[in-house]
Amino acid sequence: MPKVKRIDHIALVVENLESPLSFWQDALGLNLSGTLHVPQEEAKIAFLPLGSSEIELVHPTNPESGLGKYLEKRGPGMHHICLEVDDIEGMLDQLRAKGIQLINETPRLGEGGRRYAFIHPKSAYGVLVELYEYRADVGKLD
Amino acid sequence: MPKVKRIDHIALVVENLESPLSFWQDALGLNLSGTLHVPQEEAKIAFLPLGSSEIELVHPTNPESGLGKYLEKRGPGMHHICLEVDDIEGMLDQLRAKGIQLINETPRLGEGGRRYAFIHPKSAYGVLVELYEYRADVGKLD
Repeated sequence: MPKVKRIDHIALVVENLESPLSFWQDALGLNLSGTLHVPQEEAKIAFLPLGSSEIELVHPTNPESGLGKYLEKRGPGMHHICLEVDDIEGMLDQLRAKGIQLINETPRLGEGGRRYAFIHPKSAYGVLVELYEYRADVGKLD
Repeated sequence: MPKVKRIDHIALVVENLESPLSFWQDALGLNLSGTLHVPQEEAKIAFLPLGSSEIELVHPTNPESGLGKYLEKRGPGMHHICLEVDDIEGMLDQLRAKGIQLINETPRLGEGGRRYAFIHPKSAYGVLVELYEYRADVGKLD
């Protein structure tokens, strides 16, 4: 049975990285492990590790992208939850068998070979859920 | 310096507990550790531990409550992030000194002596953040 292991990260959509970092880093005291420009996702991301999870600030660099339109429509705030699973294909099969609607029927390949897929929020009661499988042979980020 | 230790839970607001549990418990395979009716918060809560954190499904029992109106206005979805801190008074002092707007100026007392306070989403770029201090001498839940 495929298994969910932990919350990998919570993604927050933001209008820029600097001002929200003044809250998360300067006021709350979280560590900033780095920022990354991900052209494939048309986003700049700031990573704030916290225990065994991470807070990610995601700034869409293209207002016409899906995330850019989401920000325009709903304003900044929580965007999605990413769960680490031990077997992403197995989990997608299990979800399909339970009638869960997926955004990605097969895992997408991200930076460094990272494999991930999104569940449709219609099937998750308004929550956008990302699944991600960690593999030791590929880095999470190059 | 007061410190944020980990993500304690992510709270999802739901229209009932049963249907979302079919997603989180039956389809994704998370364990349900219990459900609780909290009259003080006019809510029924389902607890789904995950790694060192928890997913909480929160169903407002009074449509006129703050959470009930939030659900009515925005629909089901992510509601807030709760962070465990080691010194809640110290953290509230630090946040005030940084100009962060708080919903609760002093910690509130919840079930079993649990002490918590909310930061205003205006200061957290659209995210509702709860702070909570664990103390070994009081149970998290009775």
